[in-house]
Amino acid sequence: MFSAAPLLPHIRYMSAFEATQFVPFYIGQQLAGYIHHEQLGWLQPYPEVFQLGGKRVELHPRLASPELRTLAVQAVVEEWVAAGMLKKREEWYDVLSHWGAPPLMRIMRGAHRIFGMLSFGVHVTGYQHNEQGLKLWVGERSKEKMTYPGKLDTFVAGGRSSGLLPTRVMVKECGEEAHIPPEIAKTARAVGAITYCRQLQSTLERDTMFVFELKLPGDCLPVPDQVEVADFHCLPAEEIYHLMVHSRKFKDNCHLVLIDFFIRHAFLSPDDPHYLTLLRGLHQSLFPPQIS
Amino acid sequence: MFSAAPLLPHIRYMSAFEATQFVPFYIGQQLAGYIHHEQLGWLQPYPEVFQLGGKRVELHPRLASPELRTLAVQAVVEEWVAAGMLKKREEWYDVLSHWGAPPLMRIMRGAHRIFGMLSFGVHVTGYQHNEQGLKLWVGERSKEKMTYPGKLDTFVAGGRSSGLLPTRVMVKECGEEAHIPPEIAKTARAVGAITYCRQLQSTLERDTMFVFELKLPGDCLPVPDQVEVADFHCLPAEEIYHLMVHSRKFKDNCHLVLIDFFIRHAFLSPDDPHYLTLLRGLHQSLFPPQIS
Repeated sequence: MFSAAPLLPHIRYMSAFEATQFVPFYIGQQLAGYIHHEQLGWLQPYPEVFQLGGKRVELHPRLASPELRTLAVQAVVEEWVAAGMLKKREEWYDVLSHWGAPPLMRIMRGAHRIFGMLSFGVHVTGYQHNEQGLKLWVGERSKEKMTYPGKLDTFVAGGRSSGLLPTRVMVKECGEEAHIPPEIAKTARAVGAITYCRQLQSTLERDTMFVFELKLPGDCLPVPDQVEVADFHCLPAEEIYHLMVHSRKFKDNCHLVLIDFFIRHAFLSPDDPHYLTLLRGLHQSLFPPQIS
Repeated sequence: MFSAAPLLPHIRYMSAFEATQFVPFYIGQQLAGYIHHEQLGWLQPYPEVFQLGGKRVELHPRLASPELRTLAVQAVVEEWVAAGMLKKREEWYDVLSHWGAPPLMRIMRGAHRIFGMLSFGVHVTGYQHNEQGLKLWVGERSKEKMTYPGKLDTFVAGGRSSGLLPTRVMVKECGEEAHIPPEIAKTARAVGAITYCRQLQSTLERDTMFVFELKLPGDCLPVPDQVEVADFHCLPAEEIYHLMVHSRKFKDNCHLVLIDFFIRHAFLSPDDPHYLTLLRGLHQSLFPPQIS
């Protein structure tokens, strides 16, 4: 049984934000994000796109359709890219007021975080269970990755590109990152979702991670793609816990995925006084009432 | 795969309250509960115990220790019992500001709901898995029960009496309600917890259900105690879903336990637009910011 207390710093870190530093961002009547005061300067030159009030930012109401919004915002984003303020990425995210709602617009991956928009991704925990106990497969991120180079990651993970359903993203990423054939990837079980809302520098991350578990047959070895993933390691649950407590080797949000796994597989006990604090950290509100 | 939309009414029902009807209840600096306006009349005759302000109720500060508080409140509770306003129960609950905190006082089970105090309990989902699929054991509550007589229940459930840890409550209830021997009950896995906050008549229920799963060996048949539980039924998951959608046969909060089970066992898909709404309903805030 693992002790919950040493994991609390990860929960605190993944739920911390300074509410007074953000203003809400509206598209029509929909709350679409939260923008840091420091980022308002990025928007100020474009009053025909962003209307800056004292306590909120609104997308200009003349941009009345998802298509118009996408084009207008992307024109601004391209200027940021040209000015070297943002890196160009060839991937689109849907902008949603909440999961299941029709997209308000689309936006380039990487630009969405400026606006504190909801993001969605999948995380797959790959594991093996035999007489020696439970071992988890973890990925080691490539040193060339833009974010968290060289850090340890969950087995397979990926952001949800515009229009893709989570199960589809999961199968796709299993193939791309670990060369897991679709017929094995499809045996992965969707077991829930984790939500967190935390400040990362001058952005508010409001992320949903759809969680899958994939029990890998003993003869199925993942093969890293060498672009996103440099290597895979198969580690006992106890060693993962030790790494989480005594190192910063894991990418930040992986701690939540692993805590969720430990709870579902009863490595943590409800008799532990900090059990519910961990659990609450896995299901945070994405609409912090502190930012009105 | 089950559709999420037909389950949404249960989530709405289990998270609905009229915030304007409640005031917070403080013990010292700790927020200990929420009291309905209509219940304030019960407290008014006892100014030496309850201090009623316009926007909050406070336990009298002279009651500075858990023992003094317990005695003073119980004296009031006994008067309510004598007047027939409340039924006497021989069981004590701890009053906690949050899980893991030292108890602020103890209170008679049944009286705690007047104050909207946090309550804690365990729910065990018993199931069998064979070539015909997954079947769940559900209890049928005795017609003599004070609450929800005759309704269907999770396999085994019980409130957490003062001082008992969840695992201990689980083993105890498995023995009492279903005659499951401790050595089998102890194989149950703690897999998480569900929190909900809803108005039930003139009270605010703020409940935490520690969730266990018990895979019963095929030759282990639960035996109802005939006091709490009249009978046990072993039903396919599909039939449970059908009952949840088309009947009101289950006790209210069991719907949440079963939805949680369906999510963990992948009967529901993250591709469903209502997946996250269900999930959010299982992890509600027990401190509604709407009641300030």
